[in-house]
This record gives sequence, C-alpha cells and structure tokens, in this order.
Amino acid sequence: MLNIRPLDRLVRALKRLPGVGPRQAERFAAYFLRASQGEVDEFITALSEVKNSVVLCPKCFAYSEGGLCEICQDASRDESQICVVEDPQDIEAIEKTGAYKGLYHVLHGAISPMEGRGAEHVKVRELLARVQQASPKIKEIILATDPDSEGETTALYLADLLHGQVEQVTRIGYGVPLGGDIDYMDEMTLGYSLKGRTKI
Amino acid sequence: MLNIRPLDRLVRALKRLPGVGPRQAERFAAYFLRASQGEVDEFITALSEVKNSVVLCPKCFAYSEGGLCEICQDASRDESQICVVEDPQDIEAIEKTGAYKGLYHVLHGAISPMEGRGAEHVKVRELLARVQQASPKIKEIILATDPDSEGETTALYLADLLHGQVEQVTRIGYGVPLGGDIDYMDEMTLGYSLKGRTKI
Repeated sequence: MLNIRPLDRLVRALKRLPGVGPRQAERFAAYFLRASQGEVDEFITALSEVKNSVVLCPKCFAYSEGGLCEICQDASRDESQICVVEDPQDIEAIEKTGAYKGLYHVLHGAISPMEGRGAEHVKVRELLARVQQASPKIKEIILATDPDSEGETTALYLADLLHGQVEQVTRIGYGVPLGGDIDYMDEMTLGYSLKGRTKI
Repeated sequence: MLNIRPLDRLVRALKRLPGVGPRQAERFAAYFLRASQGEVDEFITALSEVKNSVVLCPKCFAYSEGGLCEICQDASRDESQICVVEDPQDIEAIEKTGAYKGLYHVLHGAISPMEGRGAEHVKVRELLARVQQASPKIKEIILATDPDSEGETTALYLADLLHGQVEQVTRIGYGVPLGGDIDYMDEMTLGYSLKGRTKI
C-alpha cells in the first residue's frame, strides 16, 4: 500500500486469511495502524498464546489446551457414538443444538478428488484405528460432513469403509432448513425433505 | 470457541477487525491454528513492524516510513493542488488513475453530526493551517471525500471554510460508474449524470 514496505508485507500476510481480498486486507491493515499499541499487543499475545497452547486432541483431533479435549475427557458423554465432522468449528455448531451427547472425530477437511485430496490427507486412518481399538465397541458413527459434493464424497467413502466395523453408520438428515422458503429451495433439497417426511 | 480460553481471546481480537463477524473471526482463528509457526511469526513481525515504523506524514497525514511521505517529497508533483480524502487508502485509488499530479490531504475520517463527530475530530484545522501557510499559494483544492452523506457533509463544510482562501474549491464529479447498468442506477446518481453530461 502506497509503496510502504512494512505495510505491504502486512497486507500480504492479511490476504492469506480465508476469503480476504486485497481491499479488505488493506482495510484490516488500516485498522491495525489506527488501533492503539495496547490493542495490537493484546492481539499479538492472543495469537502467540493460541499457537503455543492450543493443540489437537490426540483422540478426536478437536482443539484442546493440552491432552484430551474437554469432550473426550467428559465421562458423562456416550462413548458408543462418534460424530464425524470436517472442521473443529463444526463441533461447536452441533453442541449448540444440545441434541447430541456422544463423542466426535474431526477429519480436518474432506476428500476431494477434484483437488487431489485423498483419504490420506484427512484423519480417516485415525478414525478407523479408533473404531477398531474402541472398547467398549462403537455402536454408531454419525457422518456429519458438509452437505456439499466433497462432504458427500467423504461420507460415502467412510460409510463404505466402516461397513461391518460398527453396528450402524448414519448420515445427518437432509431437508428444508427452518426459516427457509419452500419456493426458493433447490429441487434436490426439497426432494430429500419429501422422502424424509415424518408423521406429525 | 469450544471453551478454549486462548482461542476465545483470539476470536474476540479478530472480531474487532472492520466488518468481521463471529463466524469469520472463528474461521480466521482456525486459519492461524492450521498455519505453520513460520507463517504466524511472519505475520506478527509484519504487524509489529508496521506499528513501529509507519507514521503519519506531518504535512498530508498519509502513511509514511518516517518524515514526509513519498508524494510530499516528490518535487515533480504540483504543489498548487491539494486533493482532500477521508482515508490514506483513498490516495492509492486516485494514484492508480494516473489523472492527478498534485498533493493530498488525509482527513482521517469524515464529519458526522449523527455520530457526534465534528470538524475537530478530523484533520480540518491542519488543512486550514496548511493552506494559509502555503507558499506559493494553493490554487485548487479538490474535495474527494466519499459520495455518501458524511462525505457530502464534510465536502460542504470544507467548501464553506476554504471559500476565499484558495482560487477554487472543486468536488469530484458524480455520474454513472463505468460498467454500471443504467436501469439499476439510483435516480440521484442518474440525475447527476444527466446534469453533468458532456459533448462527444
């Protein structure tokens, strides 16, 4: 920005944030320039601390402050269920529903043949080992990967792989989202919501 | 995020970036967690360096690496023209046009009676002092504040204030943007574009 090298470097670093383009990166840089030294120091401390103290849970690969994550440590959770998600943030979304009391497994991505990302790039091997070593046995694996093409591919791959290893492998239900508008819904979703209709 | 305190602190700091909501802040935090230590260090270095080495030009208040900024130092620029902008980033946008060879003055904001921001909150006093002390005299001041209500208020205020101090005070032209679609244009803009029509 304006031939000021330190500023250019910062803008370049900010552009690496997911979904951030050149204009937004410049606006972020301008924010940091305007911010007080205290605010910037606070930010740097928070960032360093995250890199130093946040690790992946060795069991489910969610974020943890060292050792097993909170959920894996929680004896009240149902150990016979594993919900498989793509990203650690997905856990928070599912936890907010209050509808699930089992454990998780974070893949850290999805299989994407288009982008050359195979099963070896996500934590599939770790999931299989976990299922095979589990005692007591895992009863259900819920596949909660995203309902997009990569998430679907991953779910199908895992369903195939886990077949026979656990009592049942399930996939989260498709249908119309609450607050959605039927006539704005794509036909695939609407088709699934009809197939998955329930008695009231 | 997920009851991990360092992560919560980072998400909170990231939410302060302009236009960033909770979801995007979480996505940014996840990016930093995935990023290599080297990338994060590079980011922290760039940020610290910007805070340490980038200052405001004492003449025009654009960013500078110390002392006068590059444009104020450039003897080939026309010193009789000052283009007044709200933010330092605006300078870059105008420079890219190649249509302007004068100097700049950055207000660092706009007057906003609604938000209780008066002329004393932006660099208006400094502009007036600069105009009065200029030798040779300033011939033209171009008001290039944003074409929104705050920018308009600021332009009108400055036009009034600078009346008689310089040969002419001008405002950037309003009209339809190139690539725009006439039938999507608001009536104010279209009205201005008709009033400001030119012979071809």
